[in-house]
Amino acid sequence: MEFSSKLLENAVNEMSQLPGIGKRTALRLVLHLLKQEEIRTTDLATSLVKLKTEIKYCTSCFGISDTQLCDICANPKREERMLCVVEDIRDIMAIENTSQYRGLYFVLGGKISPMEGVGPGDLNIAALVKRLQEGGVEELIFAMSASMEGDTTNFYIFKQIESLGIKTSTIARGISVGDELEYADEVTLGRSILQRIPFENALKV
Amino acid sequence: MEFSSKLLENAVNEMSQLPGIGKRTALRLVLHLLKQEEIRTTDLATSLVKLKTEIKYCTSCFGISDTQLCDICANPKREERMLCVVEDIRDIMAIENTSQYRGLYFVLGGKISPMEGVGPGDLNIAALVKRLQEGGVEELIFAMSASMEGDTTNFYIFKQIESLGIKTSTIARGISVGDELEYADEVTLGRSILQRIPFENALKV
Repeated sequence: MEFSSKLLENAVNEMSQLPGIGKRTALRLVLHLLKQEEIRTTDLATSLVKLKTEIKYCTSCFGISDTQLCDICANPKREERMLCVVEDIRDIMAIENTSQYRGLYFVLGGKISPMEGVGPGDLNIAALVKRLQEGGVEELIFAMSASMEGDTTNFYIFKQIESLGIKTSTIARGISVGDELEYADEVTLGRSILQRIPFENALKV
Repeated sequence: MEFSSKLLENAVNEMSQLPGIGKRTALRLVLHLLKQEEIRTTDLATSLVKLKTEIKYCTSCFGISDTQLCDICANPKREERMLCVVEDIRDIMAIENTSQYRGLYFVLGGKISPMEGVGPGDLNIAALVKRLQEGGVEELIFAMSASMEGDTTNFYIFKQIESLGIKTSTIARGISVGDELEYADEVTLGRSILQRIPFENALKV
């Protein structure tokens, strides 16, 4: 792609560094900004820089928060005995949307992925283990993505805390509600048969 | 979508103002920036603000350019007798990629679209008419998008310059090269029959 302006080329190159944004999309976005009032561009730029430089993390769950303790960790009505391990803040938002969980969260900051150069040391695993050692948590719920990396991360943490005798669980894998059996992949369908649940439990939901 | 941080919410809101970027995508992009070095965010922000505040337009074709005359307008090898009217700089890049056009361009800055509140006064139509009145252009080629708005804009300009006696043409509409007839829409197929060309002309390409 050849540009008639160095300024334009720079902006497009920077924009296309974002995941899922190719050069053509970046050009479309940048030209859109050019058509808008200047305040739109400066507001966008300022909000990004402000977020990056002033961002704070909850000292308890490592989620993004403007205060030392995030709203969930600071809420006395949440059950402190349950701790749900997630990859990032988006997973908290997704689970909160279901209104089915009243415990606390712990944000790992990703999952172990040798392919992407992410080792256990890059995640908040040490802090998690320390928190569990301090006591108070009775059940640890793994809510990582259903991938090889997610399973590896779960297993790595499980091995580290096995001796603490804390109950561990993982969110159920199975056929999505509303899905037809014939369109489910074999691994999911296989797991949903192996990990079948008593029918009276299913009636409770 | 509920956010745990005002800073995060601001950044996501600003990002989701961009066309085709919803709240979820915006959150994904912003969280990606958070994981990167700070320089990535400041570089992106700086390049956008710099582009917006320092952008210059070619005084001849109104395309984006760092110099007073863009590279194409300043090139003495381009044919000055042909002027191709396009909506924005992306169209110039697309046509230049074909290496099939050696004339000059004129960027209108959009198309007449009452639905989006864009009237003839919002485009560079007056400057185009003035340029044509000054003489030197023998053929005006309309290369607007094949939409109602594109056709309207072409017709509006045509009416303004009809008396100047300049030859006008529009880029050919028809079946895309490589396309199957049965999948073409009726309007395109209909036009391609009505505007059929002598077979010996097709052989020349």
